[in-house]
Amino acid sequence: MTHHKFEPQIYHTAIGPHQPVLHIEPGDTVSTTTVDAEGKDATNQPITPGGNPQTGPFYINGAELGDTLMVTFDRLAPNRKIGFSAGVIAPNALDLGYVPTFEDNLNQLDWEIDFENNTVSPLAVARLNNLKLPLSPMIGCFGVAPPRGQAISTATSSTHGGNMDYRGFVQGVTVYFSVFVPGALFHIGDGHAVQGDGEIVGTGIEISFDVTFTVQLLKGKTICWPRAENETHIMTFGNARPLDQALQHATSEMVRWLQTGYGLDNRSTHVLLGQVVEYEVGNVFDPAYTIVCKVSKNILADIGASRG
Amino acid sequence: MTHHKFEPQIYHTAIGPHQPVLHIEPGDTVSTTTVDAEGKDATNQPITPGGNPQTGPFYINGAELGDTLMVTFDRLAPNRKIGFSAGVIAPNALDLGYVPTFEDNLNQLDWEIDFENNTVSPLAVARLNNLKLPLSPMIGCFGVAPPRGQAISTATSSTHGGNMDYRGFVQGVTVYFSVFVPGALFHIGDGHAVQGDGEIVGTGIEISFDVTFTVQLLKGKTICWPRAENETHIMTFGNARPLDQALQHATSEMVRWLQTGYGLDNRSTHVLLGQVVEYEVGNVFDPAYTIVCKVSKNILADIGASRG
Amino acid sequence: MTHHKFEPQIYHTAIGPHQPVLHIEPGDTVSTTTVDAEGKDATNQPITPGGNPQTGPFYINGAELGDTLMVTFDRLAPNRKIGFSAGVIAPNALDLGYVPTFEDNLNQLDWEIDFENNTVSPLAVARLNNLKLPLSPMIGCFGVAPPRGQAISTATSSTHGGNMDYRGFVQGVTVYFSVFVPGALFHIGDGHAVQGDGEIVGTGIEISFDVTFTVQLLKGKTICWPRAENETHIMTFGNARPLDQALQHATSEMVRWLQTGYGLDNRSTHVLLGQVVEYEVGNVFDPAYTIVCKVSKNILADIGASRG
Amino acid sequence: MTHHKFEPQIYHTAIGPHQPVLHIEPGDTVSTTTVDAEGKDATNQPITPGGNPQTGPFYINGAELGDTLMVTFDRLAPNRKIGFSAGVIAPNALDLGYVPTFEDNLNQLDWEIDFENNTVSPLAVARLNNLKLPLSPMIGCFGVAPPRGQAISTATSSTHGGNMDYRGFVQGVTVYFSVFVPGALFHIGDGHAVQGDGEIVGTGIEISFDVTFTVQLLKGKTICWPRAENETHIMTFGNARPLDQALQHATSEMVRWLQTGYGLDNRSTHVLLGQVVEYEVGNVFDPAYTIVCKVSKNILADIGASRG
Repeated sequence: MTHHKFEPQIYHTAIGPHQPVLHIEPGDTVSTTTVDAEGKDATNQPITPGGNPQTGPFYINGAELGDTLMVTFDRLAPNRKIGFSAGVIAPNALDLGYVPTFEDNLNQLDWEIDFENNTVSPLAVARLNNLKLPLSPMIGCFGVAPPRGQAISTATSSTHGGNMDYRGFVQGVTVYFSVFVPGALFHIGDGHAVQGDGEIVGTGIEISFDVTFTVQLLKGKTICWPRAENETHIMTFGNARPLDQALQHATSEMVRWLQTGYGLDNRSTHVLLGQVVEYEVGNVFDPAYTIVCKVSKNILADIGASRG
Repeated sequence: MTHHKFEPQIYHTAIGPHQPVLHIEPGDTVSTTTVDAEGKDATNQPITPGGNPQTGPFYINGAELGDTLMVTFDRLAPNRKIGFSAGVIAPNALDLGYVPTFEDNLNQLDWEIDFENNTVSPLAVARLNNLKLPLSPMIGCFGVAPPRGQAISTATSSTHGGNMDYRGFVQGVTVYFSVFVPGALFHIGDGHAVQGDGEIVGTGIEISFDVTFTVQLLKGKTICWPRAENETHIMTFGNARPLDQALQHATSEMVRWLQTGYGLDNRSTHVLLGQVVEYEVGNVFDPAYTIVCKVSKNILADIGASRG
Repeated sequence: MTHHKFEPQIYHTAIGPHQPVLHIEPGDTVSTTTVDAEGKDATNQPITPGGNPQTGPFYINGAELGDTLMVTFDRLAPNRKIGFSAGVIAPNALDLGYVPTFEDNLNQLDWEIDFENNTVSPLAVARLNNLKLPLSPMIGCFGVAPPRGQAISTATSSTHGGNMDYRGFVQGVTVYFSVFVPGALFHIGDGHAVQGDGEIVGTGIEISFDVTFTVQLLKGKTICWPRAENETHIMTFGNARPLDQALQHATSEMVRWLQTGYGLDNRSTHVLLGQVVEYEVGNVFDPAYTIVCKVSKNILADIGASRG
Repeated sequence: MTHHKFEPQIYHTAIGPHQPVLHIEPGDTVSTTTVDAEGKDATNQPITPGGNPQTGPFYINGAELGDTLMVTFDRLAPNRKIGFSAGVIAPNALDLGYVPTFEDNLNQLDWEIDFENNTVSPLAVARLNNLKLPLSPMIGCFGVAPPRGQAISTATSSTHGGNMDYRGFVQGVTVYFSVFVPGALFHIGDGHAVQGDGEIVGTGIEISFDVTFTVQLLKGKTICWPRAENETHIMTFGNARPLDQALQHATSEMVRWLQTGYGLDNRSTHVLLGQVVEYEVGNVFDPAYTIVCKVSKNILADIGASRG
């Protein structure tokens, strides 16, 4: 159960079978940092090319094809005062042909974190002078090396994770990925101080992070799509276009989890999900969109369903 | 401000320019009943063909093209003890080719409401014996006669409302529709005691309702897609396939509402929505899917944005 | 076998259960006219509101729920010299956010038919002075009254036909529709002198037509989606968004046709379609998109498959 | 202008920055072989793991970021007598929930080529005993190493090419790709003796090929999506889901080609495409679907538009 302090020297804008930066054991904890989406560090200086650069990959000793990697986000904390966001809703989220015209080209703007009050406010948008959003740090992009020798851009996501941009990936959450290559090769980056559903301007409030995470290995267990859990819910993730297909992947993965993980039969799975399923929208900006399928842990407890 | 008690004699499975059943004034309240999705009434007897039969249409005196109709759901209450749901997740929400096989053909099952404890439980699903879902009555299908002489099936939805199957259409909510024909012709039906996001089995817990609603008229104001508000949020609705397009309609309508209703300029609208927008999934079962776009009223209050 | 000459007095911009304009017998032929998409007649004068106004409906005596209506387009002929088209590709067919900027706002332009050489040329587009497209008259919108008491806008299409805007609906083609209401109520309108695949500018070369068609009735036979045939192919039509779903409907209907109409078994249907199916793109502009699924009649003849 | 004979020793199931197998000059020709989709060679023996294994990559000397690679398929010829196909239409191409049931599990079947008569016939499907499809060899998967250090599975496609499965990629066609990495790194594989539009069973008639191709380099020219041309048409390719998005990419690329390649202005491009564009459906089976946008070379010649 070593707690590693790791200072990154190199970053990747594709998640793939890169040279590991650190070998760790199941049960180990890593504290490290991530740069922001444009490659700027805690001093707001660009130190690597942009595009959601990832810290890592971390090689988990013993991880191999057929296992599931479990990563808990122990700490996700912005490590500087100024973040930035885009300022125009992407055409992905607006009616076809709906093109906003702007008095000035508002490509990007800065936001300032008030660490004392845990709020975030935009700079230089007069009309929003009184806006103080609750600081809600989340991590946008992370995952494991994909199957088939692939290296997949951190602009997008798939079964291996990637750029899911879901505002629920906050401190305390545990995520699960199938292992496709020896060591799993976990990557992490792209922190947001705040993000709306869908990441519809193409960014959250992008900022560099201090991150601490702990890994575990579930030997001989595989899943099809990323899973996660927080205190109240279990969650499954589908990454695809259109949103319909993302929702299909996420729902199918939840059916599998309830049946193989919680021992529900077909009948009870379908009847239950029909009336209790919750969906959230991850990104609707990246090449693959993300839908989150959630079930309340309380409901599972009520019916006596627990993980074997 | 008359409070009408109306007992329906006829139901419609398309929303269109049918003969009005009652003429009412803006400000009036109507108490009436709706049958369930299969046309069964408070005694659980079939009294009209199924397919989300609608009570109405109600003719609002003075409503004409160019106005907006405002309807507040004062009361939405199941008026019998037994509801029913489907028992199999629709292929719409599962991976292509994912076909559940069942030990028995679970087309439909009954649920019982415990009005004392405000819970709902399935009958005859052994594994779910302890399931007690909070009673959460919502109305699945309602709207006004569509434009262009159309009559549109209550299986689907569009700019006129229709079968949106959103679990947030609960008591206390106010909805808004553009008026397309003289009198607006408001229809309402398809109550659910409980429903999961997406209505992924194709039903909520379907049941007959006592409903009370109050209408208002906003003269000379039009909107593009349905809007609504509850205590905490303003909401806009997009109805289309794929989900992406539904989300585009809903977001565009929210942009318009913030700008023309709340006086935000282009810049502040885009910057704000990017970090605070919330989405919910209405139905992903009907011919048109539904996405809900939401903004917190507290945030609008913080920045001093109010409706003129 | 009466040949009716019918001069329309009224037009509809929704296809639905309107008052029939003429009652005809199976086997009868009708010669009539259609106005262009904007309601202009053979003299290029507006005589009815625009939006693909339909001539009809024609009541086919004896047609009832459970039958299939068969309509052969005996003649589809522009009856004036000047047509018009839109001049900008719709955002439906361009990358998100790809917005063409124009030196002048080219909303609409005229095209002239050279009836001697059977060509069509744009007026006043200098760069296209030498463009002479072969005159290829086709009919954009037609169908029967839809089920469930619906009246559906002629902007869109569904199982009842409607605005499919497929360039293959030319003279000589026979189309098939399920009958949903007594008399079937056939409507027809929206002629094009020429059209590209997809109708990506939102119009073909819109023009008024002389049309002659002959109806037949297949008693006790139903289909799910529109079908058609020309000399070389049988065709099925799916109308929906996204295109994927339109293709799914069209393919499924072709599977049904091959099995119930041509007596192929499951195995040969799937093996055959996999290697010989052809698709064409109808419209990608209207609320529902259209995909055409085709199979060569020669191939069916080669394997000895014929309609029983 | 060397003509290289190359015998592959290694195959890749992702297209990416692999070690080049051969360095060639612009203008050079390569004759080599490809295995079938399952990794079987001209003797029908498996020699490498399946999944559209690629021959290559070939390093084109002088190719660098900012150039366009041009590849002409001089010869595409099956080099054995027996191919195979899947036998069941994929759910991608059928209505949701439409699940064919089969008397026997027809996962795969063999087809035999009659090289004398240039026809292909299925083996052991009694009902199709007389089926003789014209031999129409095409290549399913090829492309260049993608940008951003990615390696992308040969199951799918994107801007770099990949598994487009378009039946029009036949002998004589020239294809164009942007160069993303030094040397371009051209890969090729996945030959089909015949294929239906859409590759709806997930395969064509899969077979090993003798291939000969010639490369050219267009220095300092870039394109966004793959392009091609045959004797009669220029073509652009969009690879994405849903089909709508693939069509958007392909159409936008054609607009760019007509404007920057053929010197058309905005106005003439839009007016022309609106009435002459043709679409074809590549695959609707792979993770990314493919739409082909085509314009007739005769029409371009008629208006005096030529490549500068």
